[in-house]
Amino acid sequence: MSNKPTLPKGTRDFGPQQMAKRTYILDTIRTVFQKFGFQPLETPSLENLSVLTGKYGDEGDQLLFKILDNGDFLAKTTHADYEQGVSALLPKIAGKGLRYDLTVPFARYVVMNQHEITFPFKRYQVQPVWRADRPQKGRYREFYQCDADVVGTDSLLCEAEIIRILEEVFGKFGIEKYTINVNHRQILNGLVEAIGAQGKESDLLVAIDKLDKIGKEKVITELQERGFADEAIQKLVPIFDLKGNNSENLSTAQEIVRDSETGQRGITELREVLALAKSLGSDLNHVQFDLTLARGLSYYTGTIFEVKAQEATISSSISGGGRYDNLTGVFGLSGVSGVGISFGVDRIYDVMEDMGLFPEESQIGTQVLLINFDKELQSQVVPVLSQLRERGIRAEMYPEAVKLKKQFSYADKKNIPHALVIGSNELASGEFSLKNLKTGEQHSLPLEAVIERLTSSN
Amino acid sequence: MSNKPTLPKGTRDFGPQQMAKRTYILDTIRTVFQKFGFQPLETPSLENLSVLTGKYGDEGDQLLFKILDNGDFLAKTTHADYEQGVSALLPKIAGKGLRYDLTVPFARYVVMNQHEITFPFKRYQVQPVWRADRPQKGRYREFYQCDADVVGTDSLLCEAEIIRILEEVFGKFGIEKYTINVNHRQILNGLVEAIGAQGKESDLLVAIDKLDKIGKEKVITELQERGFADEAIQKLVPIFDLKGNNSENLSTAQEIVRDSETGQRGITELREVLALAKSLGSDLNHVQFDLTLARGLSYYTGTIFEVKAQEATISSSISGGGRYDNLTGVFGLSGVSGVGISFGVDRIYDVMEDMGLFPEESQIGTQVLLINFDKELQSQVVPVLSQLRERGIRAEMYPEAVKLKKQFSYADKKNIPHALVIGSNELASGEFSLKNLKTGEQHSLPLEAVIERLTSSN
Repeated sequence: MSNKPTLPKGTRDFGPQQMAKRTYILDTIRTVFQKFGFQPLETPSLENLSVLTGKYGDEGDQLLFKILDNGDFLAKTTHADYEQGVSALLPKIAGKGLRYDLTVPFARYVVMNQHEITFPFKRYQVQPVWRADRPQKGRYREFYQCDADVVGTDSLLCEAEIIRILEEVFGKFGIEKYTINVNHRQILNGLVEAIGAQGKESDLLVAIDKLDKIGKEKVITELQERGFADEAIQKLVPIFDLKGNNSENLSTAQEIVRDSETGQRGITELREVLALAKSLGSDLNHVQFDLTLARGLSYYTGTIFEVKAQEATISSSISGGGRYDNLTGVFGLSGVSGVGISFGVDRIYDVMEDMGLFPEESQIGTQVLLINFDKELQSQVVPVLSQLRERGIRAEMYPEAVKLKKQFSYADKKNIPHALVIGSNELASGEFSLKNLKTGEQHSLPLEAVIERLTSSN
Repeated sequence: MSNKPTLPKGTRDFGPQQMAKRTYILDTIRTVFQKFGFQPLETPSLENLSVLTGKYGDEGDQLLFKILDNGDFLAKTTHADYEQGVSALLPKIAGKGLRYDLTVPFARYVVMNQHEITFPFKRYQVQPVWRADRPQKGRYREFYQCDADVVGTDSLLCEAEIIRILEEVFGKFGIEKYTINVNHRQILNGLVEAIGAQGKESDLLVAIDKLDKIGKEKVITELQERGFADEAIQKLVPIFDLKGNNSENLSTAQEIVRDSETGQRGITELREVLALAKSLGSDLNHVQFDLTLARGLSYYTGTIFEVKAQEATISSSISGGGRYDNLTGVFGLSGVSGVGISFGVDRIYDVMEDMGLFPEESQIGTQVLLINFDKELQSQVVPVLSQLRERGIRAEMYPEAVKLKKQFSYADKKNIPHALVIGSNELASGEFSLKNLKTGEQHSLPLEAVIERLTSSN
């Protein structure tokens, strides 16, 4: 049997180099989450389809991976089911599915553990999710999500902290050109009221959300096509030309929604979020009020966030989130409000790769390779290996006494920065030859000095 | 819709406390793997069924979770298929399955990347696997495996390093009572030859493997029932009574297999493994040659490992592994030999929990809670929050100015060791009140002193 194995469409292996980089990204984000008081949660990959279905719209239901019941999965089916097709058969042969996002499992967890959880509950979750999307460049069927949420409080301190989390994470990554776009659902609602577009809310918001991509003129054309009156459109024109600082733009917006109580509340809240972020040490340089930002309309009810990185001419969405007032209603528990943020791990990876931002040395790779000179010497050399490891140095010995060229090539391919050469002369003198494989420098040193160099060069 | 959500049978959520403990276990093992030069690999949860099927025996095939093809999964089926049932329908409606272990995906990775991989390839992999086993206490349908393997070398240094890895991991965990049982497949083969049991190999090995559980007399009875001659059984008796040290027991075994070249080779190799482990710093106190250890008979070809922890009267298998000479033959690539070790994360968790071995403080929890006294003071207090975090302290502020009792109870439940009280007096004086929530001690301190205490108490 020599048929070549393959990977399912839209899935990937992560080899050692990619893993080192992905681990760097995820560990950095985890550390920041922890610094802000978030605690880890993991939920199973398998969920009952009764939990998943109906939560992501019709399209989402289509994209769920469903798992065949084990054993005789046809036992509960009839010929008539088969005749009727997929919709009749499916509920009888598949009871479980794969996690589609981290939010619904989180909501399920909160409902199932509502009496044990201490609210406000700050949790983060870093796990893969699965979607049967058509695979394409940058879109996978199995990919990681990386979310943090606070539920059980309306405090705007949480929104302000999200801004700080974003600044700290992207600061650590060395991504300098990025914007944290913020808006508020109630300002958008105020806008709808202000131009009398009640009932055409999504027509309005979907159109203005495109400003970024298609520009002012085309948005106006689209609004006309969607049947908005010229008078209404005229009221909107100022928001297409917002060029001031956040404070000025908020004042412009406030003027537009002046007759909407909801809109005013949104303005007030967003001002408070920005003020709190400033008290928390943000310079707000990356934060931009964007009245056309309209994502997550079906669930966000307060502040909305979207982070875009600018590389060259491409702008790439690398994080998003917002406040919602009903996480768990769908499972019969109302009143659980919260605010969350999600990092797009694959996008961040691509941005950092394109911009060469990964630290040169992975923090987890072998630091020194002991050259294997002679099988007979092995038992005298390996104690050194142990002494290095005891001092916390990641060390390995080439397991066979093959040609030196092969051993050095191994070190090179594995990106090991140092080689330690211990032959019979070195064993006799107690001075080992440490070679820096990047610079070619070589020093004859006693073990303590070797350890010192390896420790300080880490 | 208020139907209570549930979890699929055999799956679990891991809340913050469990996650802290699991993270401690997995990070400890990962760090040791890295110190020994292993590199991380992750493969997709989804694999093509063509990759998974036929690799785990008939029972394994039954236990694979299979994923329904998306969209119209009946498109390729006919009435006749439905009539015929599961075996005819399955291949036409499900092309993918969930990972059943980490070994087959590793083998697939090696085959698909054979020209890019630098051999010897030392990889570790920590990921969940899925099995449609009947759920029972301690057995789950979704659980983590944690494997390390070296492939592409026959060097016995690898076996010796596995012994050191085991000692280092269990040493770090504080598990003192454990045994690393070792045996060698070729010694077992020698035993089969020695008693002339060729052709009844598995009858013999399955029976003697039970010595541990059922005792000498019952093993002898079982061997008689399985048709072994008394003369053959008499030759085995010495192995039921091995009571010496490893060296003595190896000599006893050597005597039994003296006419088998294979058996002699096994003895020689195992001696070399133990000698190398000793050179690597092992005291061999936990290592025990066990001639009745016979696991993984279908794939192990050299040294075999099994680690058992003794708690009270229960002995629990917490790790296992061995050398194999054909990882990838099933995918058409021969000659890839290697040796691996696998840690049983759930078992280790249970042992550590039962014995109270988890470090008291999780290393990732919040270190200090800022008490929220007064919404009006919030913007003056939050800069302190940022200053603490800038110094690397995991800090959070209770997001609302609710009753103190509620805030302290939050700290207690979240196991936060300190509270920092900053009211208007404190803001005026610049001295903050730091309360140790374990001891009740309270000190009035300037910020620098607060930071110092929090840093040193970590």
